[in-house]
Amino acid sequence: MEINGVTIDDTYAEAFPAWVASVLVTGATKELAFKAADEATGFATSVIGCESEAGIECYMPPKETPDGRPGFLMMLSNPKKENKDKASKSHKNLKDQLVERIAECILTAPTAAVFNGMPEASEKIPVKLHFFGDGYEYQKSIGGRSVWAIPIMGGEFIIEEEVGCIKGIAGGNFFIMADSVMAALVASEAAVEAIMEVKGAITPFPGGIVASGSKVGSKKYKFMGASTNELYCPTLREKIPDSKVPAGVNGIFEIVIDGSSEGSVGKAMAEGIRAACRVPGVKLISAGNYGGSLGPFKFELHKLLSN
Amino acid sequence: MEINGVTIDDTYAEAFPAWVASVLVTGATKELAFKAADEATGFATSVIGCESEAGIECYMPPKETPDGRPGFLMMLSNPKKENKDKASKSHKNLKDQLVERIAECILTAPTAAVFNGMPEASEKIPVKLHFFGDGYEYQKSIGGRSVWAIPIMGGEFIIEEEVGCIKGIAGGNFFIMADSVMAALVASEAAVEAIMEVKGAITPFPGGIVASGSKVGSKKYKFMGASTNELYCPTLREKIPDSKVPAGVNGIFEIVIDGSSEGSVGKAMAEGIRAACRVPGVKLISAGNYGGSLGPFKFELHKLLSN
Amino acid sequence: MEINGVTIDDTYAEAFPAWVASVLVTGATKELAFKAADEATGFATSVIGCESEAGIECYMPPKETPDGRPGFLMMLSNPKKENKDKASKSHKNLKDQLVERIAECILTAPTAAVFNGMPEASEKIPVKLHFFGDGYEYQKSIGGRSVWAIPIMGGEFIIEEEVGCIKGIAGGNFFIMADSVMAALVASEAAVEAIMEVKGAITPFPGGIVASGSKVGSKKYKFMGASTNELYCPTLREKIPDSKVPAGVNGIFEIVIDGSSEGSVGKAMAEGIRAACRVPGVKLISAGNYGGSLGPFKFELHKLLSN
Amino acid sequence: MEINGVTIDDTYAEAFPAWVASVLVTGATKELAFKAADEATGFATSVIGCESEAGIECYMPPKETPDGRPGFLMMLSNPKKENKDKASKSHKNLKDQLVERIAECILTAPTAAVFNGMPEASEKIPVKLHFFGDGYEYQKSIGGRSVWAIPIMGGEFIIEEEVGCIKGIAGGNFFIMADSVMAALVASEAAVEAIMEVKGAITPFPGGIVASGSKVGSKKYKFMGASTNELYCPTLREKIPDSKVPAGVNGIFEIVIDGSSEGSVGKAMAEGIRAACRVPGVKLISAGNYGGSLGPFKFELHKLLSN
Repeated sequence: MEINGVTIDDTYAEAFPAWVASVLVTGATKELAFKAADEATGFATSVIGCESEAGIECYMPPKETPDGRPGFLMMLSNPKKENKDKASKSHKNLKDQLVERIAECILTAPTAAVFNGMPEASEKIPVKLHFFGDGYEYQKSIGGRSVWAIPIMGGEFIIEEEVGCIKGIAGGNFFIMADSVMAALVASEAAVEAIMEVKGAITPFPGGIVASGSKVGSKKYKFMGASTNELYCPTLREKIPDSKVPAGVNGIFEIVIDGSSEGSVGKAMAEGIRAACRVPGVKLISAGNYGGSLGPFKFELHKLLSN
Repeated sequence: MEINGVTIDDTYAEAFPAWVASVLVTGATKELAFKAADEATGFATSVIGCESEAGIECYMPPKETPDGRPGFLMMLSNPKKENKDKASKSHKNLKDQLVERIAECILTAPTAAVFNGMPEASEKIPVKLHFFGDGYEYQKSIGGRSVWAIPIMGGEFIIEEEVGCIKGIAGGNFFIMADSVMAALVASEAAVEAIMEVKGAITPFPGGIVASGSKVGSKKYKFMGASTNELYCPTLREKIPDSKVPAGVNGIFEIVIDGSSEGSVGKAMAEGIRAACRVPGVKLISAGNYGGSLGPFKFELHKLLSN
Repeated sequence: MEINGVTIDDTYAEAFPAWVASVLVTGATKELAFKAADEATGFATSVIGCESEAGIECYMPPKETPDGRPGFLMMLSNPKKENKDKASKSHKNLKDQLVERIAECILTAPTAAVFNGMPEASEKIPVKLHFFGDGYEYQKSIGGRSVWAIPIMGGEFIIEEEVGCIKGIAGGNFFIMADSVMAALVASEAAVEAIMEVKGAITPFPGGIVASGSKVGSKKYKFMGASTNELYCPTLREKIPDSKVPAGVNGIFEIVIDGSSEGSVGKAMAEGIRAACRVPGVKLISAGNYGGSLGPFKFELHKLLSN
Repeated sequence: MEINGVTIDDTYAEAFPAWVASVLVTGATKELAFKAADEATGFATSVIGCESEAGIECYMPPKETPDGRPGFLMMLSNPKKENKDKASKSHKNLKDQLVERIAECILTAPTAAVFNGMPEASEKIPVKLHFFGDGYEYQKSIGGRSVWAIPIMGGEFIIEEEVGCIKGIAGGNFFIMADSVMAALVASEAAVEAIMEVKGAITPFPGGIVASGSKVGSKKYKFMGASTNELYCPTLREKIPDSKVPAGVNGIFEIVIDGSSEGSVGKAMAEGIRAACRVPGVKLISAGNYGGSLGPFKFELHKLLSN
């Protein structure tokens, strides 16, 4: 299969279930809403080393938000929904991350407000920040949503305290391989921009792009849980016997996608791949899978792109 | 004291010691370097709820970086330097945060490289990411710095594995009070932009600004460790007897500053305050202090601004 | 009439007919498309002193463009469609401006391509840049559009050489009055962001905002064709007898809108006003009119906002 | 000569004299100052088709500006200083462009102020906008500069009415040739970012980059004054006998530089080239010259880069 002259590998991305929650952050201006959401979704690329995976789903113009202000939908993704082992103090779970990231990064952000980004979800996570108001808080309704108004130095902080969550998907992915590092990079940027238009999906890595793919474990350093995937390193192609870097490929980046459903992850993959194939120098699109050991979801590239 | 018609309160900011480390992140373009540093310094507003305080110190143009590429200095600040209680798995310390934030957010970022941002510091924290190379990594010298080159999908990841750290300062602060919320906000933005030019200092909150100042504990909800500082909430001025919001003030924001030395925090405060005083509508600049219970450093506003 | 506590003046904006053309500029990334469109729409705030009025209508995501790349719709507006007086060398007309701005600012921009932004318009302006190819150019079809491909240093420049134009509207407007300059400013930014989502309308002034409204002629300097509208200057309220600045208003900005139809200008005005009314400190929304001497279109604020 | 493995051609850039003026635009925030300067320097890539060449020189932090606010230096460049042929109504000269661009794009921009960006220049161009004040204007001193304050809707417009100008240089240039279009593009972006740090020099094309180099006249279309320089078109290398595109080069961009002196243009070229050479995939840096027919200035690449 080819798109715009780029070969689409006949393979699939393997992904796994994860809990996701979606928060709508609004602000007095688009820039102010962005800064709040950006801070709240930082240090959240992979749950291997971060306590959550997070990113911005899409921009929400004023007329689509409950308070008529510009906003951004942001998504958090965690394998665990909450910490059930009360003896453990780990915060690596969706509920704790939602509460802490909103409390530290959005309650503190100028003009920011919080609304449930997934009102249709049947499960809800409580984010009870109104206690911060120390009794001066009060309830009201904005755009049909029941919210708390908490007096703060910068005015009032508005929060809808129930955030919808759903069992979604983490680990959707594809690889962009190009004749130069910079062609692969610009194609990755184009892919991320296309995915930014899709509601219900995020690309949690820096700028949405993974530069350093990994394999499980390490051949040389036994204490390492993960190490570089040398088979996909262009600079090693001539130095190792079994390199999987195709001839003519000098740069590879991976786009990793978390989302609320198979539909949204698949749509994000399809639109991202199509955008990447518009950049001169891209040679091959592929995807990562592990024989089912990672998870039950399969996103077959040819199927996604045949519509 | 007045600057440009704005009253400067005769008070001081009280701050406390903290460990700080500085990392120089470079990239193929300014935007790419920024995206890596931005991800790495996210979810890091206050160590009350985040595992570190972090932010971008300043832009470093190509001719000032070891690899001749554009970069950003980023700073991390933690009360503890490292986790000495091996039984605890907490990562809320400078060393763990440096390693994890670089590993998750910069190693993975396209074209990003890492250099010691504080080469003059005598203490160093090791950030041994070269093991990720699984034996394919090698050492070389770039711009006089000894670095590791680790083959990755996007080329090679370059890292100087010793990052300087120093006993610095956290909690430098000032308050901007204005006749409207938006005047206080624009003045805060101007202050943060001025501080962005100062090496050795960061403003870790979202966009550099704190919208929701807090007091210790809560009068009404005994389970809360902190709650809104109602004395400084403009919307409560007429509703509580002892409000400290001056007449005519309708918006207040706080700028919190961490830095590597009294000099850098003081310079950041002075330049931030001067910039804020240029915005029409600003009435009063003040600062937060707690009778010495918070820490030993005092930044007297009048003294800082008399030079 | 009130929106969110802001008084809406019972008045109308008076506007006049103008020729408008719409161009879709795409690029390898959103940022590259933006830079081309931004350069091409610069120095184009008012045809009083500029040769055209121009601005960016809205972002067009990859899946809505003929070449599957991100793009921006930009609009040019001129009272005259073309220069019919061949003796005159003036380029102050839609056709000349289209050709020159595309030739100088988009043909030269990296990765940029040009498509007809208003394919449904019956009138078309030819923009025959393919001669630049010196015979090396060729025709092809992209996304159903017949285009020329012109070899250049950066690859090939793609252009659809017929750009739709229509008799539209210039001078749609409203005033945002607030209790402080900065509240009026942030409200203006919010209004411009809301209008940026409306296809078929632009706000040609810097950042979309007019800071210096004018009256025709000058009382004191007879050689001036226009001068400051002192009746609406907040700093003069106490100094002149007939100031029209309402009590409590200290900052006023105007949003000027050009568009392809009464519908698009009206929609832009309504969404801009609604967004402005969400910013604390805004007191009054009004609009400019001149008893019909400026033009035949009337946009009544109450009518626009009653839907 | 090689820099970081990139061949530097043993050639020179040929440039010619032009009048340049420098304006400092400040604003309440960096973004507001930028928007004003960006609008004022738009549609100004080449005096072949635009009425001026213009661009942003560099950012000026608050402590380096007369009013203590953030600003940007912008430069205009024109072959002619003023229109001496009063019969001609052409505005293609430095004086007219200065006046019109400031009047239309900065006087109208929210919170913007204008200062002389080249106070050390002995020649000055008057920009008498204070008549816009219709008698309500007044003079005062800001940061040692004598300025006019003109009441406007957004407050007061501040302008220093004498702008320094100097006989400078236009047409400094270099070519970046790389193995892929995107490598040449990212290298061009890096070059422009480096030049953005140099005072006294601008890159007037969109994003600072020229994608479509031209030759004088046309072989096929006699009515064309300029056409594509087919010798440097990568897509034509195999199709024309005398292509000058080196083997392995698939993308070429040109950086054109105007500046206030040989020193500033030379410094901009050197820093831009050094930055470009840091991007993987760049093969050759060259420059354009025309045997002295274009102008008297020669910027020899090897000499510039040997310091």
